[in-house]
Amino acid sequence: MAVKNYTVEGMTCGHCEASVKEEIGEIAGVTEVTADHSTGAVTVTGENFTDEQVAEAVSEAGYTVK
Amino acid sequence: MAVKNYTVEGMTCGHCEASVKEEIGEIAGVTEVTADHSTGAVTVTGENFTDEQVAEAVSEAGYTVK
Repeated sequence: MAVKNYTVEGMTCGHCEASVKEEIGEIAGVTEVTADHSTGAVTVTGENFTDEQVAEAVSEAGYTVK
Repeated sequence: MAVKNYTVEGMTCGHCEASVKEEIGEIAGVTEVTADHSTGAVTVTGENFTDEQVAEAVSEAGYTVK
């Protein structure tokens, strides 16, 4: 089980957090995602997921991994 | 047909605009809603709707009419 932290730019509210969590949550192996728009902190828990997959999911949600 | 302008506080992004538009759009008689998070400007077009209904819908979306 891996727990990885990312900083995501552009989230301004709870809707943004929800969008990011939804997209990352669709990655196979991901079991938990937290997101805080005030800090940009995103924590992803799971197995066998890559930074590239997370970055792509964040991008699909309309934001950017710093 | 009435066109009324409101200023809504608290919208920070396009998701917020969508929430406000959705809630106001559920008011009977409302035919069009525009919302701009950068200015807070919300325009409601329709018939037989009241300011109180708009304020309530905005509140339900999680924001406040100024």
